[in-house]
Amino acid sequence: MSEISSGNNRKVEVVYSPALFPVYFDNNDCIVVVIDVFRATSAICAAFESGVDSLIPVATLEEAIEYKQKGFKVGAERNAEIVEGFDFGNSPLTFKDGRFKNESLVLTTTNGTKALEMAKPANKVVIGAFTNLSALCDYVEREDKDVLLLCAGWKDRFNLEDTLFAGAVAQKISQNLRFSNLSDSSIAAINMYDSAKDDLFDFLGESSHRKRLSRLNMEEDIIYCLTKDQSSIVPVLEGDMLVSNKR
Amino acid sequence: MSEISSGNNRKVEVVYSPALFPVYFDNNDCIVVVIDVFRATSAICAAFESGVDSLIPVATLEEAIEYKQKGFKVGAERNAEIVEGFDFGNSPLTFKDGRFKNESLVLTTTNGTKALEMAKPANKVVIGAFTNLSALCDYVEREDKDVLLLCAGWKDRFNLEDTLFAGAVAQKISQNLRFSNLSDSSIAAINMYDSAKDDLFDFLGESSHRKRLSRLNMEEDIIYCLTKDQSSIVPVLEGDMLVSNKR
Repeated sequence: MSEISSGNNRKVEVVYSPALFPVYFDNNDCIVVVIDVFRATSAICAAFESGVDSLIPVATLEEAIEYKQKGFKVGAERNAEIVEGFDFGNSPLTFKDGRFKNESLVLTTTNGTKALEMAKPANKVVIGAFTNLSALCDYVEREDKDVLLLCAGWKDRFNLEDTLFAGAVAQKISQNLRFSNLSDSSIAAINMYDSAKDDLFDFLGESSHRKRLSRLNMEEDIIYCLTKDQSSIVPVLEGDMLVSNKR
Repeated sequence: MSEISSGNNRKVEVVYSPALFPVYFDNNDCIVVVIDVFRATSAICAAFESGVDSLIPVATLEEAIEYKQKGFKVGAERNAEIVEGFDFGNSPLTFKDGRFKNESLVLTTTNGTKALEMAKPANKVVIGAFTNLSALCDYVEREDKDVLLLCAGWKDRFNLEDTLFAGAVAQKISQNLRFSNLSDSSIAAINMYDSAKDDLFDFLGESSHRKRLSRLNMEEDIIYCLTKDQSSIVPVLEGDMLVSNKR
């Protein structure tokens, strides 16, 4: 049978919470896309776009402090705010002026860096955000592996913005590669993205995290995080360190 | 402030998988609706509608065998089929002829009875299916508690049919009670139900479990399970036993 009639047997699954990752992760030889749209993965993409050389994601503040003591520039966010004593948080706008060009950074966040830690046993781990959507999809399509779209969520709860992004990716790659093996979680995420894509900002008006960020006057961050294709870089995990796929 | 302007502060959350239940279950004083549309909870509703007196859900085949040895009529399903040696599986059509009227039954299924077991620490546990949708919503609305809509899923994975039903319930009770506290998981489930409600059967055409049941020639079961309001009974857990709310 031709590829056109048979479709593609790679799997694409959306994992709605880090707490579900062990359920879906049954095969190391996959590509995991870590998604934390508000705002860790958007910030990581912005960092690389601004010329950052590498970024070490760490799960705990303890590790972050150790790196700081070694002289690294270290970002730390908890509950949407910069942790006192650190150099930055997870606002993508931090990187706009190129102040960390060529540097090696360290970052810990409430949800995103924990999801990254969890994904490490996978053969390939990459960072996705609306800001690098097309580049990410191209990258994922070229790898001949099953795809897990891992939503960082909020403290292991489902959230809308990560699911919408996962739906955008699942839709794009399943159309381009004619995937025949869409899971229920992908079907649902694609359906949701389809109904929201014409106005993501409006659709997210009721979401818990947009409300949380709005209370903290972060509307500018939200608009940035929902603006597609501002970067053509895909951050890729190499060992414990994220680097640009274009390095 | 009037109820109209302030809304209702009860929470309604959709739990997409039993593996996420510990994340959402932070307060015993809630009502948990256990949902396994294909087919455990549809079958349980059908059993009560046919006049069954009580039904003991058990999580394991070992427990089911013990009850059988004590002389109970026992149903057991694994991977969508009746387990050899048991009296029935989880097809709701089993109960059509009233053969178990006034009996006390026992049932174990792949997903539904495990979700029930997990929900037991909650103050109130009830059974939901499209077949008792309106009665269930009335019941839930009358209880003054937070609501967790627990989707049994498939082996801890997200599935479409349970989510659609959760969306139907979340939509109905949030409109009637003017809930102001919808979680992201409820917003997503309501959105999905809205886009699917005009033809649930068609929407589920690509779902993994409908395909699984179709391969086993269970189309008649599927149509039954998607037909709303065939029963006005809400099965309620009392101790280890489900009974009718009308008893």
